[in-house]
Amino acid sequence: MPEFLNLLPPDAAIEAFLEAIPKDRNTTPEKVPTEDALDRILCETIAAPHPLPPFNRSTVDGYALRARDTFGANPGLPAYLTIVGEVEMGKPARHNLEASQAIVVHTGGMIPPDSDAVVMLEDTQWAREGEIEVLRAVAVGENILQEGEDVKTGDPIFQSGQRLRPQEIGGLMAFGVTHIQVARRPRVGILSTGDEVIPPGTTPQHGQVRDINSYTLSTLVARAGGEPIRLGIVSDRRQELEKAAKKAQQEDDILVVTAGSSVSARDITSDVIASLGTPGVLVHGVAIKPGKPTILAVVNGMPMIGLPGNPVSALISAGLFLVPMIHRLLGFERNALKASLSAELSVNIASQTGREDYLPVRVVNSAQGPIAEPVYGRSNLIFTLIRADGLVRIPAESTGLAAGTKVEVHLF
Amino acid sequence: MPEFLNLLPPDAAIEAFLEAIPKDRNTTPEKVPTEDALDRILCETIAAPHPLPPFNRSTVDGYALRARDTFGANPGLPAYLTIVGEVEMGKPARHNLEASQAIVVHTGGMIPPDSDAVVMLEDTQWAREGEIEVLRAVAVGENILQEGEDVKTGDPIFQSGQRLRPQEIGGLMAFGVTHIQVARRPRVGILSTGDEVIPPGTTPQHGQVRDINSYTLSTLVARAGGEPIRLGIVSDRRQELEKAAKKAQQEDDILVVTAGSSVSARDITSDVIASLGTPGVLVHGVAIKPGKPTILAVVNGMPMIGLPGNPVSALISAGLFLVPMIHRLLGFERNALKASLSAELSVNIASQTGREDYLPVRVVNSAQGPIAEPVYGRSNLIFTLIRADGLVRIPAESTGLAAGTKVEVHLF
Repeated sequence: MPEFLNLLPPDAAIEAFLEAIPKDRNTTPEKVPTEDALDRILCETIAAPHPLPPFNRSTVDGYALRARDTFGANPGLPAYLTIVGEVEMGKPARHNLEASQAIVVHTGGMIPPDSDAVVMLEDTQWAREGEIEVLRAVAVGENILQEGEDVKTGDPIFQSGQRLRPQEIGGLMAFGVTHIQVARRPRVGILSTGDEVIPPGTTPQHGQVRDINSYTLSTLVARAGGEPIRLGIVSDRRQELEKAAKKAQQEDDILVVTAGSSVSARDITSDVIASLGTPGVLVHGVAIKPGKPTILAVVNGMPMIGLPGNPVSALISAGLFLVPMIHRLLGFERNALKASLSAELSVNIASQTGREDYLPVRVVNSAQGPIAEPVYGRSNLIFTLIRADGLVRIPAESTGLAAGTKVEVHLF
Repeated sequence: MPEFLNLLPPDAAIEAFLEAIPKDRNTTPEKVPTEDALDRILCETIAAPHPLPPFNRSTVDGYALRARDTFGANPGLPAYLTIVGEVEMGKPARHNLEASQAIVVHTGGMIPPDSDAVVMLEDTQWAREGEIEVLRAVAVGENILQEGEDVKTGDPIFQSGQRLRPQEIGGLMAFGVTHIQVARRPRVGILSTGDEVIPPGTTPQHGQVRDINSYTLSTLVARAGGEPIRLGIVSDRRQELEKAAKKAQQEDDILVVTAGSSVSARDITSDVIASLGTPGVLVHGVAIKPGKPTILAVVNGMPMIGLPGNPVSALISAGLFLVPMIHRLLGFERNALKASLSAELSVNIASQTGREDYLPVRVVNSAQGPIAEPVYGRSNLIFTLIRADGLVRIPAESTGLAAGTKVEVHLF
C-alpha cells in the first residue's frame, strides 16, 4: 500500500494534465464534405437558414380542407366536399380552396394556403364522381406538420465542439450544408523504446520481443479521433530518445512514449521530457493498477505522455489519459454519458485501498443475467485483454469486491 | 392497436430475414495490412506459431539466481551471492549459473537457463564489490514470467468472425502477423425515392425537400462495417425504381430503398422487390414504432430492405434490421453484449401493447443520477434524433412506463 500513498489519484492527474494546456491550443479547423464527416468534431456554430419543414406538410394520405367545413360531421350526417384537384408531390400547392372544397394530398405533400386541416382517407368515402363524404369532424391543424415545427429560422442548430453522428450528417444535409469546418485530427506521435523491442515484421532472437504498443496505441488514437504517427522504435539510450522527441516536438500535436520496462529506462523518459521545455513533467506516477508509472507532461504547450512499456498497462493508461487529451485538442465537448454493462462479479476480488484498479473481465450470460469473470494474467500480458470484453473499475476507497456484487463493465 | 395485430414482432422479423440468407452468402475475404485492420472482421483462424512470451522473462529489476541458494535467508542471516554478469536487454542470457552465483537482470530481460527465480533489487544489498546479500528467501519461479505463460504454441488465438480491437491488432503483431484476411465490406446500395426529394446541394422549390436518408443511412452503413454506395434519388415511377434496383442487384450485396412516404409509393417498392426474384418479400410491416412499414426481402440470395421515407423511422429501422444483416454478411460472430446507460424516466410514457416502441431520449445528470427525458417530435422529424442521446426500448407487452422507472438508454 505505501507505494501508492504519494501518487496522484487518476481524476486529479487528468485534471492537472488538461488544465496545463493553453486555452487556445485546439487544433485548427479544416473544411470537409459533410458526407465524409461522420464522427468528426464540428468547428463552427450553424444557425438554421430556413425553417424545417420549409412548408406545411401533410402527415397522412387524405384530403386537405377547411376544418370548419367538417363541423359536426359523423357517419350518419357526413360533410359533403367537392374535390377540386390533387397536390402533386414535389410541386407547390397552388389551389385556392373555397367553402366545401377539398384537395387530394399525399403524405409529405404541401398543404394549400387556404387549407387548415387534412382528413385521412380512411375517414372518408366517395359520394359521387368529384365529391366525398367526410365521416368525422377534423380539428384545425389536424394531420398537418407546420412549417418550422422541427426548426425555426435562426435556431442555433449545431454547436462548435459537437461530434457528428449519422443524424447530424442528415440534419446538415436537410439545410443544404454540404461542406463544414471540422477540427483537424491531432497528430499523435508514438514512440516505442527498449533495446529488446523489434519491429513486428522481423524475427526475434532470444531476448527480443516484437513491438506491440505502437500498434495498440495507434489504433486507439485513430478510434479517439487522432491521427497516429508511428515514430518507430528507439533504444534505451538518452541521446536517441532525445533526438526522436525533439523531432516530434516540431511536427506533432501530442507525443506518446512507451518507456522501456526497467526503472532506469523510465527515468530516462522523464528526464528527456523535462529537458524539452516548461512546465515539463506534471505527474510522475498515478495511483492506478495497471498503469502506475504513467508520466504526464506539458512542454511549451504540447502534451507528452510516458506510458509503461507493458502492453496492458500502456493501453489502459492511454484510455484514461491520452484519449481525453485528444478530445481536448479537438475541442470536443464531451457529455459525460458513458454506456456500460451491468453484471455480477463471479468471484471475490481483493484490492488495495488508495489506488484505483482496472480489472479485465469476460462477460458470460447466465440464467441470472450477465456474469463478469476476471481474466487473470499475472503479468499483464496482451492476451489478457484479448480474452476480455471490458474493464471493471474498482474505486480507490474499496478493499475489494465480493462475489455477486453488481459491477459496471466498460466494454472495449 | 388492431393495426399492429397482424404484423411480425421485430425479433421474429429479423430472424426470418437472417435465416433466408444462404449459409455461404458471406462476403469474400481480402488481405490487408494488420495495422489497417481496426474494427474489421477476421476471416481466418490463426494458431500461435510460437509461445508468448517466447522465453522466460523477469518481471522486476533484480538478480536472477537459483532459489535453493537463498533457502532460509533473512535480514539477520542473508545469503551471499557472487555477481557474475548482467543480462543485456534484447540479448540472450548465455551465462551458466553455478552455486551461489547471481546475474543482474532488468524487467523484461531474459532469464539464464540455470536460473529459476529472481530476487528484487529492494530485497538485496551490496556486500562488497561483486557480491550481494539476499535478505529473504525466494521461491522457485518467483518474479519470472514463464515461456508460454500467455499463449502456448498451437493455441487457437484468433477465430474467423472476430472483430479486431486495438488489443487484437497488438496481439497479431506480437506474432509477426503483419497481413491478415478480413471480410470484404459488403456493398450496400442506398436508393432514395420520392418525387419531392432533391439532392442536398440544390435549392428546394415549394413542395420539395432535400434528401436526408441517403446520408444518415450511408454513415450508419459505414459505421456498421459496410461500404455505402449512394445510388441517388429516383422518382415514384415504377419503371425508374425497377431499373435502379436491377442495377443494384448486379453490383451490390444489399439494397436499401427508402420508400416515398405515401401508401402507393410504398406499394411500388414492395411490388418492384417482389418482381426481382425469389423468395421475395418476407416481411411487410413490423410491430414497432417508429418503423412499422419496413419491408424485408431476400431476392435470389440478396437481402433487400424497404425503409419508411421518414428520416427518423428510416434510421431507427435500419439500426434494427440493416445493421445485423451487414454483420451477417461479414460473418461477424457478435457476442450479444450491449452497453447501455441506466437512467430514470422523467415522465409517464404511454405505449400500445402489441408493438415495441423506440423512444428518443435526452439524458440529463441530476443529483439522483441520470434522468432520461423523452424528446418529443410529433412527426418524427430528424432534429428529434439530433436532440436525443439514445433510444429507450419499450417492450411489446408494456402499456407504458411510469415516471421514475429505471430504463436502459441505448446511446447512439
